Amino acid sequence: MDLSPLLKPQSVAIVGVTDDFSTIGGRVFKALVNHGYKGKIFPINSEHKQVGGIRCYPRLSDINSEIDTILIAVEGKEATMAIEESGKKKIKSAIIYSTSFIKHGEEARLENERIVDLAKKYDLLVCGPNSVGIVDFHDNITMSSSQFLDLPQLIPGKIAFVSQGGSLGEAIINRAQDNGIGSSYFISTGNEVVLELSDYIEYLLDDPHTSVIIALMEGIRDAEKLLHVADLALEKKKPIVVMKVGRTAAGRKAVNSHTGLMAGTDAVYEAIFQQKGFIRVFEPDELYDTASMLARNSFPKGNRIGIVTTTGGGSVILVDKLTEMNMVIPELASKTDRELSKIIADFGLIKNPLHLTSQYFSDPLLFPKVLEIFSRDENLDAVIIVISTVSGEQSKEIAKHIIRTAESFDKPMLTWWSGGNLSAPGMKILGESWVPFFTSPDQCVVALTSPIRYGKFLENHFGEKAPPLSISSSSRERIEAILKGSGSILTEDLGKEILSGYGIPTTSEKLSRSLDEAQKFAIEIGYPVALKIISPQIAHKTEIGGLRLSIGNEEELSLAYNQILDNVKKHSPEAEIKGVLVQEMAKPGKEVIVGIIQDPQFGPMIVFGLGGIFVEVLKDFSLRHAPLKEREAWAMIQNIKGYPVLKGVRGNSPCDLTAIVRVLMAVSQLAVDFQYSISSMDINPLIVYPDGQGVKVLDCLFVKKYQ
Amino acid sequence: MDLSPLLKPQSVAIVGVTDDFSTIGGRVFKALVNHGYKGKIFPINSEHKQVGGIRCYPRLSDINSEIDTILIAVEGKEATMAIEESGKKKIKSAIIYSTSFIKHGEEARLENERIVDLAKKYDLLVCGPNSVGIVDFHDNITMSSSQFLDLPQLIPGKIAFVSQGGSLGEAIINRAQDNGIGSSYFISTGNEVVLELSDYIEYLLDDPHTSVIIALMEGIRDAEKLLHVADLALEKKKPIVVMKVGRTAAGRKAVNSHTGLMAGTDAVYEAIFQQKGFIRVFEPDELYDTASMLARNSFPKGNRIGIVTTTGGGSVILVDKLTEMNMVIPELASKTDRELSKIIADFGLIKNPLHLTSQYFSDPLLFPKVLEIFSRDENLDAVIIVISTVSGEQSKEIAKHIIRTAESFDKPMLTWWSGGNLSAPGMKILGESWVPFFTSPDQCVVALTSPIRYGKFLENHFGEKAPPLSISSSSRERIEAILKGSGSILTEDLGKEILSGYGIPTTSEKLSRSLDEAQKFAIEIGYPVALKIISPQIAHKTEIGGLRLSIGNEEELSLAYNQILDNVKKHSPEAEIKGVLVQEMAKPGKEVIVGIIQDPQFGPMIVFGLGGIFVEVLKDFSLRHAPLKEREAWAMIQNIKGYPVLKGVRGNSPCDLTAIVRVLMAVSQLAVDFQYSISSMDINPLIVYPDGQGVKVLDCLFVKKYQ
Repeated sequence: MDLSPLLKPQSVAIVGVTDDFSTIGGRVFKALVNHGYKGKIFPINSEHKQVGGIRCYPRLSDINSEIDTILIAVEGKEATMAIEESGKKKIKSAIIYSTSFIKHGEEARLENERIVDLAKKYDLLVCGPNSVGIVDFHDNITMSSSQFLDLPQLIPGKIAFVSQGGSLGEAIINRAQDNGIGSSYFISTGNEVVLELSDYIEYLLDDPHTSVIIALMEGIRDAEKLLHVADLALEKKKPIVVMKVGRTAAGRKAVNSHTGLMAGTDAVYEAIFQQKGFIRVFEPDELYDTASMLARNSFPKGNRIGIVTTTGGGSVILVDKLTEMNMVIPELASKTDRELSKIIADFGLIKNPLHLTSQYFSDPLLFPKVLEIFSRDENLDAVIIVISTVSGEQSKEIAKHIIRTAESFDKPMLTWWSGGNLSAPGMKILGESWVPFFTSPDQCVVALTSPIRYGKFLENHFGEKAPPLSISSSSRERIEAILKGSGSILTEDLGKEILSGYGIPTTSEKLSRSLDEAQKFAIEIGYPVALKIISPQIAHKTEIGGLRLSIGNEEELSLAYNQILDNVKKHSPEAEIKGVLVQEMAKPGKEVIVGIIQDPQFGPMIVFGLGGIFVEVLKDFSLRHAPLKEREAWAMIQNIKGYPVLKGVRGNSPCDLTAIVRVLMAVSQLAVDFQYSISSMDINPLIVYPDGQGVKVLDCLFVKKYQ
Repeated sequence: MDLSPLLKPQSVAIVGVTDDFSTIGGRVFKALVNHGYKGKIFPINSEHKQVGGIRCYPRLSDINSEIDTILIAVEGKEATMAIEESGKKKIKSAIIYSTSFIKHGEEARLENERIVDLAKKYDLLVCGPNSVGIVDFHDNITMSSSQFLDLPQLIPGKIAFVSQGGSLGEAIINRAQDNGIGSSYFISTGNEVVLELSDYIEYLLDDPHTSVIIALMEGIRDAEKLLHVADLALEKKKPIVVMKVGRTAAGRKAVNSHTGLMAGTDAVYEAIFQQKGFIRVFEPDELYDTASMLARNSFPKGNRIGIVTTTGGGSVILVDKLTEMNMVIPELASKTDRELSKIIADFGLIKNPLHLTSQYFSDPLLFPKVLEIFSRDENLDAVIIVISTVSGEQSKEIAKHIIRTAESFDKPMLTWWSGGNLSAPGMKILGESWVPFFTSPDQCVVALTSPIRYGKFLENHFGEKAPPLSISSSSRERIEAILKGSGSILTEDLGKEILSGYGIPTTSEKLSRSLDEAQKFAIEIGYPVALKIISPQIAHKTEIGGLRLSIGNEEELSLAYNQILDNVKKHSPEAEIKGVLVQEMAKPGKEVIVGIIQDPQFGPMIVFGLGGIFVEVLKDFSLRHAPLKEREAWAMIQNIKGYPVLKGVRGNSPCDLTAIVRVLMAVSQLAVDFQYSISSMDINPLIVYPDGQGVKVLDCLFVKKYQ
C-alpha cells in the first residue's frame, strides 16, 4: 500500500487547532511550525482568524487548495464529520488524535465503525484514532502532539519506530534521542481501525532512510498480513526488533482494557517471532539499543568475544551473561599474545578477558595499544570494553581512544561503563558518538548478541522453500470424505487412515466386526496383538475397559474380545460400536507427541514434545507455524530441553530424528491442506526407534472444526 | 570477631605515601585529609619531610604514639616487612592495598603465605592484599584509594557494602551515591588471605548504622562461616543482598584468573542463598536499588500491587513483569471505586491499573488525589506509578506530588519514569529524595519484589528447628560397621539396611546363598518376586543379566536363579558373589530420586527430583544444605517444575507427599551423621504411592568417602 500521502504530505489541514498550545491541536500545530515543516499548513477553526500568524479557515470546505493529510484533533462526532468532509474533498489521508474513540460503551464502538465505513467509501488512509501522530525525522514532518517534540532539534537516523503504545512510544523515543540514537519515523498507530501495524512496516521496508524497524506491539489484527511483511523484511534484510507486551494472562487483560486490540497467547507470538526472524526484547530501552547495533553497516561475523577490562569483577559478570547467550570467550591469537607481551608487564595476565590492572593508570598509552591489538585479533568477532570509575579528564581520554579505535576497524566495539557521574565527561563523549555505550551489562549483552543471532538466522534462512508434499487425488478425496463424516471426534482407525495418506507410518491394524474376523486379522498381523474398542462415542478407551494389550494367542484373544464388549455394554450402553480394532503390539521405543493446533489468529501451528508430562507440566515443547521448512522441523526437535533424550544420552542410542522430521513435515502439510476442517490433532504417542529404524503412530486423536 | 580497630581506627599510619596523588598511597592520604578524618594520620616516607603539610616519619619505628591501623601502599617484600614491623609495634590491624600479591607464580604465593603467618604470629587483623580499602561513611574514615572518593561529599546511609570486587565495587558505590542512596560502609575485601567476607558481615550485623548488607561475591573460603553469619543475619533481621559472579563455568574460570578465590558451582550457591534468605540479584545496579527498599523501616506487607499510569503500554509491561514474579494486581476496594468515580470522567477506566488518560493534563489536581486514594486502598500493599514523558515544570509538580504522598502514607510507593531528559527536572527531584525511582521497569520490579519475598521468608523462617532424628545406638554401630567395611561402593542390601536404620521404608528382601534359600525366602516374601545378583564388583546389574523381575512361581524362580548365576559367571567371572537377593515386586507408583552429594565447600547437600531424565537432562531438581528443616523439605518438593505430577494432575490422584518429606528428613539426618563417611548416595527410584499409602525404596547406591 502506498502510504506516502499520509507519511509525506505536501500540505496538511488541522481540525481543532487553537492558540492554546496545551491542547492536542495546538501542540500539533506548534510542532509543525517549530520543527520547520516545509509543506503548507491550513489551520481550521471557525472562532479564530489566525493561529500563530497563519490564517485560519472556518471550515474545511473553505480551503481551495489540495490537501494531502487532514489532522483531526476534535472528539467524537466532530471527528467523524471531519472525516466525511475530507472524503468529499478527496483528501487522501487522515490522522485522528481524538481519544474519545477509546471510551467504553456502545457509542464509541459505533463511532469507530463509522470511521471504517467512511475510509472505505472515500478510499482514505486513516491513522488512529487515539494516535499521538506521525513524525518524519529526515524531512521534519512532525504531525504529532508528542511530548518529545519539545526537544529543540530532532536527530534523524535509520531506525523507524512503529508503536501501538502512544505515550510509552513517546517516552522511548525521547530516551533514544537523549542517547544520540536517531530515527527515520515515529508512527503511533493508535486504535488501528483502518491502517494497522503491518501496513506501516510494509511501507517502511521500501523507505530508503529506514534500515531497521522497531515495533512496540500489543496485539495484531491481521495475522496473515504480519506473516507476509515478516517474509518481506527477511527478503529485504531489514531487521524488525519487537517488544510484545501482554505476555501474561494478567498483562493481556490490561491490554484489552486500554485498547481494542486482541493480545494473543504469548507462546504463539514467540513461535512466530522465532520462525520469522523477529528480534524480540523485553525492556523498553533494549529496543533502540538493539536497533542501533543492527543499523550499523555490518553485523558481527561470529560469536567470539574479546573483553578488555579495568575491573576483574565486571569482566566475570560479562562472561557469565555472554556464555548464557551462547557466546564464546576464546583464547587470543598467538600473534596477539606476542604483541601484548611487549607492553604488559605481568605475563600471567595476558588472556581473554584482559584485565588492565593498575598499569593502566600509570601508562596512558597502554589502553589504546591494547584496543588496537584486540581489534586486529582474528580470533575475535567483537570487542567489549569494561570501564569502572575513571574520573574527569582521564575519562575523556578513554572515550576518545575507544572512538578512535572503533572508527579504524570494522569490528564491533561496545563499551560497558560501570561507573557513575564522576565519569560523566567521558560518558558524554561516548554517548554522543555512534559507538555503542551502556551503563548496564545486560543492555550491553542484549545489544551485542541480537545482531549476531539475526545474522546467523539470515544465513540459514534462504535457499530453502517448504517442499509441498502432495498427496494423490484419491487420498485427498478419501480424507475429505472422512472429515465430512459425522461426529466431531474421529475414531482412531480413521485418524490413522488420514495419517497414512500422508505417508506417516502407523501400527498395522484391522477393524474387526466379529470374533472370527478378529482372530483372522490377528493371525495376519501376527501375535502378540492389542484389541481396542472403536466407537465415535468413546474417546478414552482405557477408562471403561475398552483396551487390552499383549494378547498372545487365540485363546487369550477370544477372552479379551468378549471382555471388551461386556465392559463397553456395562459402561457405555448407548455407544455405537463400529468394531474392535486388532492392532500389532508395537515394540517399545522413545515416545514423543506431534500435534496440530489452530490458533484463532495465526491459523495452523505444529506442536512437538516428549510425552505428556513434559509438554503439559514442564511446558517443554516447540511450536511453529505451518507450513514448516525442513530446517524449522529440525529446529523444533533440537529446541526442546529434552532433546538430549532423543539425541542419545548416557549410553542410550540416538533416535531416528530424520523419521521424526518426516512426520513433522507431513503433519505440517496436512495442517495446511485441511486447515478449515481440522480443529486439532494429536499423535500421542509417536513411538521413535533407534536411528534408521523409523517411527510409528500408536494412537491419534483428530478433532474436527465446527462447520 | 571485633573488627573495630580496623574499621574505627583513632589513628592510622600510611606506608608508601607520596605527594604524587595519582599513586595509591597518595590517593589514600588525600582522601583521608579531604573527607576530614578526625583521627591522627602518620605518613611514613623516608624521602619526604612532610606530605600535604603533615609531618612524615622515615620508619614506622620512629613513631612513638599508638597506631590502630597501618595502611600499606607498597608492594611485595616491602609490604610484608611493613606487616612484620607493625606486629612488633603491637599495631592491631592493617589494610594492604598492594597488588603485587595477585601476581602469578611462586613468589607471589609465598608472599601471601608470609602475610598469613605474620597475622597469626602478631594477632593482626588484615584486610587485603589487593584491597581498594575501607570507607566508613558516617565518621568519614576514608582509608581507600577508591575513585569515588573524588566526590566532594559522601552520603551516609544504612547500607553496608562488602565487595570482593575492587574497582567494580567502587563503580557500584559511585552510581549509588549519584542516585542519592547512602552507605554506612564500603569494604573491599581484596585477596582475603586473613579476614574474609563473612568476618566483615558478622561485624556489620552488630553495627548500629547498618540495617542492610550488600555483598558482591566471587567465591567463599570458609563455607561454614558463611552459613553461620547467614543464620545470624536472619536472627537480627538484617537482610543480605548478594550478587554472585562466576555463575557459569566460563565465568568461574575468569574469577580464578583474577583472584585466588574458589568460585563454586552455582547450583550450590543458589541453594544456599534460597535456604538462608539471601536476596540474590543479577545486575550491579540492582544491589543498591534492592537494598534501599529493604533499608526502609517496613517491608510491604503483601504482594498486591496497585498501578497508576500515564501510559497504557507501560502498565501492561509492569503487569507482565509483576505477574511473573508472583505479584497480584487486585481489583480496587469498592470504597476506592466510589472515590475515583467522583473525580474520573470515564467510568470504564476505573480499574487497576488506573490509566490517567489526557484528563490528567487538563486537571492538575487529579494526580495527587488519585495517589492518595490508592495509598488508602486496603486491597493494595504497594503502589507503582508509571510516568511517561512529561516535561519541564509539570515534571517537577509530579515529582513533588509523589514525594508528598509517599511521605504521608506508610505504603511503599515506587516510580518508573519511562521518559527521557525532557523530564529531567522532575526526575532530579525524585532522584534526590528517598522515594524509590527507576528508569527501567525491570529495576522497579526487582526492587519492589525482593523485600516482599524477604518479608515472606522471615515470616516462615522462625519457630521451627530441624528436629534431630536420632537413631538407636545399635543401629548407629551397625551402620558404622557397614561403612567401615571394604569397597568404595556398597551393595544394594547394605545400602537398604542403612536406610532402614533411619526408618526409611524399603522393599522386603532377603539375601539367599542357595536356590533352596531363595525358594524359602520367596514364599516368605510372597510371589511375585525379583532376583538380583549381589556383588561388590557389580554396580549395574541389568547390563550383565544379573536381574530378573516378576518371577511368579517356584519353577520360574529356579530357572531365573540359575540363569543369573550363569550370566554373572560369563560376564564377570572374577566378581565375588555375596548371594542373590530375593525381593518383593513393589507395586508401581510415581518414581522420584532422593540423594546426598557432598559439596567440597558446603558439605552435605540433599537432592530431590523426579526420575533420571527430569534431573539429568531437564535439570529439574531441588538442592538444599543438610540438616533440613521440615518446611525446607516441603519446599524442595514444591519447588521442582514437575511438582504438579506429584500433587496430582489431570485426574491423577495426589502422591503421599508427607511420606516423601519423612524420607527427605531422614536422609538429611543420615547425611549429617555420616558426612565424613558417605561421599554420595542415591535412592533411585523411591516409589511414591497415592496419599496415605507411603513410599518404598526400590534401589539405592552408596559411595563411600575415600578415608
